[in-house]
Amino acid sequence: MPQSFDAATALTAAEGGFTADLDAGWDVGGGVLNGGYLLAVVARAAVEVSPHAHPVALSASYLRSPAPGPATVSVTAGPAGRTLQHGSAVLGDAGGPAVPVQWTTATLHDVAAEHAVPPPAATPVEDCFSIAENAHLAPSGMTVPGISRQVETRLDPLTAGWVLGQPSTEPVVRAWVRFADDREPDPLGLIAFTDVLPPTSWATGRTGWAPTVQLQTLVRALPAPGWCLVEARGNEVSDGWVDEDYRVWDSAGRLVAQSRQLARTPR
Amino acid sequence: MPQSFDAATALTAAEGGFTADLDAGWDVGGGVLNGGYLLAVVARAAVEVSPHAHPVALSASYLRSPAPGPATVSVTAGPAGRTLQHGSAVLGDAGGPAVPVQWTTATLHDVAAEHAVPPPAATPVEDCFSIAENAHLAPSGMTVPGISRQVETRLDPLTAGWVLGQPSTEPVVRAWVRFADDREPDPLGLIAFTDVLPPTSWATGRTGWAPTVQLQTLVRALPAPGWCLVEARGNEVSDGWVDEDYRVWDSAGRLVAQSRQLARTPR
Repeated sequence: MPQSFDAATALTAAEGGFTADLDAGWDVGGGVLNGGYLLAVVARAAVEVSPHAHPVALSASYLRSPAPGPATVSVTAGPAGRTLQHGSAVLGDAGGPAVPVQWTTATLHDVAAEHAVPPPAATPVEDCFSIAENAHLAPSGMTVPGISRQVETRLDPLTAGWVLGQPSTEPVVRAWVRFADDREPDPLGLIAFTDVLPPTSWATGRTGWAPTVQLQTLVRALPAPGWCLVEARGNEVSDGWVDEDYRVWDSAGRLVAQSRQLARTPR
Repeated sequence: MPQSFDAATALTAAEGGFTADLDAGWDVGGGVLNGGYLLAVVARAAVEVSPHAHPVALSASYLRSPAPGPATVSVTAGPAGRTLQHGSAVLGDAGGPAVPVQWTTATLHDVAAEHAVPPPAATPVEDCFSIAENAHLAPSGMTVPGISRQVETRLDPLTAGWVLGQPSTEPVVRAWVRFADDREPDPLGLIAFTDVLPPTSWATGRTGWAPTVQLQTLVRALPAPGWCLVEARGNEVSDGWVDEDYRVWDSAGRLVAQSRQLARTPR
């Protein structure tokens, strides 16, 4: 039984910030920890030092992949205003800095959106494709990564042709997600969801490594309980680079988080 | 005659980085300097200290608005790899830090995209609406900001109803842009273009202040000479917050830059 998301992102106060114990169970393969998980650890630290309750904007550079195990989160909080606070943090391990982050915290209220983007038409969750339950279908040489056991990920068959060797021309991946232990989504959980899917290049049949270079995540609203719908879309693939746009809707169809990352594309 | 973009972003080497002279002519009204202009100053510093030629990803937090005039750009470069370099910088003035930035540099090559997003259908530039040439139409109490004299901005009438008191329900603003002195676009210039339009809330008739909180800009390709088409779209407006997605296409219809910002919405 994997430990919970809250245990995996738990912090202990220390000189200049916090220590954390990065959970090897949040890997994306090859012992590399998921970028959204790492960002959630930092977001928890930001909220801890802020008078505001929620991380609303986080920008992270992925210098290198920190090892599972002991880590530090050094945090510098800027002056806090009535509406928001800016600050910075660096997630590091024994090898030094790994993920510097600029963060903004604020307090989100439970109010309706004045203008919103409805979710795309998606296959109902019961007709989607569980990554964890279909390990035997994984392309040759691939195993189900830890993250797909922490987050139950039900791929929409409309964007999952690549799993069966029928890739698409569109770099789009869509899935219903929730924590495998039924923990409900909240702003910290949403952060993990904004980098939770396989790389969009996989949808086009390139199932290689696609490391994140820079990731910006925005948390836009307090999510309703239940499944979240996540869609990742690559807009331009060129010269070894791709942008991936993530949008996350809650079970009520509300856009609750967004992210964009610049990543390298597999060959 | 305003000075050129290159003069307005010029740097002088100094202890720990550079000094700059922020150009009051790049204001967005009320003496507040444009966030894209400020980011371009920082991007120039990043490229100066990097072995790579182009800024490809920049994430900025806008702590406060720096004053026009003398400024500093302190720069910390991380280890440089063959493909990219990460680093950080802080733009500040006599009042202290104003805009901390995480940057990534790399070298973009003149190659075709493997997957791309075509530009939206836009009104031809000759039928668009020059902000600078129509100062007399500005809503009451508003003047043409400096930035619209530095960057010739031709609003697409399809998204400019608000200028004539006929706002839209969609927070979308689209325009053709180029430097007023005919300087051709390049990666540094594109950075200025990723925050160059009036706030998307203006399209819906709320022509108040909409300060940027956090901005991520990606430069995706080397732009062809000529006009760029810029579209900014607010996706979710809620609880005093809006995200603005910018996409910039060059004269050949290639997506060359993207940005997303979290901003406050006017009342």
